[in-house]
Amino acid sequence: MNVTVHPFERVDDLHRKGYRLIQNPEAFCFGVDAVFLSHFAHARPGQKVLDLCTGNGVVPILMASRREGLDLTGVEIQSESVDLARRSAALNDLQIRFLEGDIRDLQRLLPAGTFDVVTANPPYMNAGGGLLNEAGPKAIARHELMCTLQDVVSAAAKMLRFGGKFYLIHRPQRLTDILTCLREKKLEPKTLRFIHPYVEKPPVLVMVEAARGGNPMLRVMPPLVIYGSDGRYTKEVEDIYYHE
Amino acid sequence: MNVTVHPFERVDDLHRKGYRLIQNPEAFCFGVDAVFLSHFAHARPGQKVLDLCTGNGVVPILMASRREGLDLTGVEIQSESVDLARRSAALNDLQIRFLEGDIRDLQRLLPAGTFDVVTANPPYMNAGGGLLNEAGPKAIARHELMCTLQDVVSAAAKMLRFGGKFYLIHRPQRLTDILTCLREKKLEPKTLRFIHPYVEKPPVLVMVEAARGGNPMLRVMPPLVIYGSDGRYTKEVEDIYYHE
Repeated sequence: MNVTVHPFERVDDLHRKGYRLIQNPEAFCFGVDAVFLSHFAHARPGQKVLDLCTGNGVVPILMASRREGLDLTGVEIQSESVDLARRSAALNDLQIRFLEGDIRDLQRLLPAGTFDVVTANPPYMNAGGGLLNEAGPKAIARHELMCTLQDVVSAAAKMLRFGGKFYLIHRPQRLTDILTCLREKKLEPKTLRFIHPYVEKPPVLVMVEAARGGNPMLRVMPPLVIYGSDGRYTKEVEDIYYHE
Repeated sequence: MNVTVHPFERVDDLHRKGYRLIQNPEAFCFGVDAVFLSHFAHARPGQKVLDLCTGNGVVPILMASRREGLDLTGVEIQSESVDLARRSAALNDLQIRFLEGDIRDLQRLLPAGTFDVVTANPPYMNAGGGLLNEAGPKAIARHELMCTLQDVVSAAAKMLRFGGKFYLIHRPQRLTDILTCLREKKLEPKTLRFIHPYVEKPPVLVMVEAARGGNPMLRVMPPLVIYGSDGRYTKEVEDIYYHE
């Protein structure tokens, strides 16, 4: 299939099944977060999976590379990003629905309570915090300008069926906000995993699995460590990147 | 000083400044939790420190072994444990106030809002959960019979001055309960540290530092790992036990 790639864009190899991703370096490029989230999220063939704040669509595309037969949808507020995501899906010959829309008003686009799985790698920075020089695509992807943590959790709670799972990756310093907000919206935290650059360093990311209507009982997993003392990827991270 | 030790009791060496602890093996003996909590909790000379559910008094006694000049108080509901704690304090020639009382009714015993630091190593098991064959001293120390997590957090919130610190050690599976309850009582979680038996195993304990009236911003520390791959204490744990 013919897919347009603009001169200011680049096409990156995802190292999975030959899948590629069209990115605009001026906007926002995916990081390890998307890779870890797509590995952490469990979905079975036939299940309906929704990605919130999908950006250039990297999470649903990585999900498709890990499991066949998923019914994937991504929602993004920035039309330039939706366009990127649609072209990447076409480039990889994938049937993924990418919708342009505001997650604060999702019921206009999608039927509530019908998804088995919701994923989100939302903006990390507090609406009030951090330096913010502009309100361009990068700022929107990084800061809580267009959606706060509350917006993301509310959208997930609305879209998931009872028992459906929500997978979120975020910053550890927001953990209290995350867990209290999830419980408030009846998305009970079930699994937590911290991601550390090195084992003796604080975590830089945390992943949470929550179940809509689940019972309280949290499982904290062993730390996910990116680099060994030799400075190379640990065996587990190498497997997540290239094999599993 | 002459201190009575009954035949059914034992006197354990705390491996710190020659301090010893009188324990009743039929009741409840201290574990690594008390050692880690006493190391995690920061208190400066002259500060007023209160230990809730103090049991045989091991946490205040260990705190005294780590820092001189603390003004230490422990509260315990079981009179047999209070008696043990008082005799251990005398055995080590320590001035620690051990009070018999219910933490749900602490204002009758102590002035509210006056402590700089509160520590707690409370019963871990949910009042509803776990096997429970008896309601004896062991069960009271392990299960939330006489005080729930909510009771402990409420007591800490009442006793601390504004800006005072609460240090809690608990089970990771209760983390959502812990963080939501702390925030609800205006004890903002500031630091979190998980304790793993081995680095590749899930944590068995979690320590939380919360500040009364603090701002939201959580720092998650590197994992505290007890054993190395050689099955021996890690350097850090050895230091916590014997040196720091």
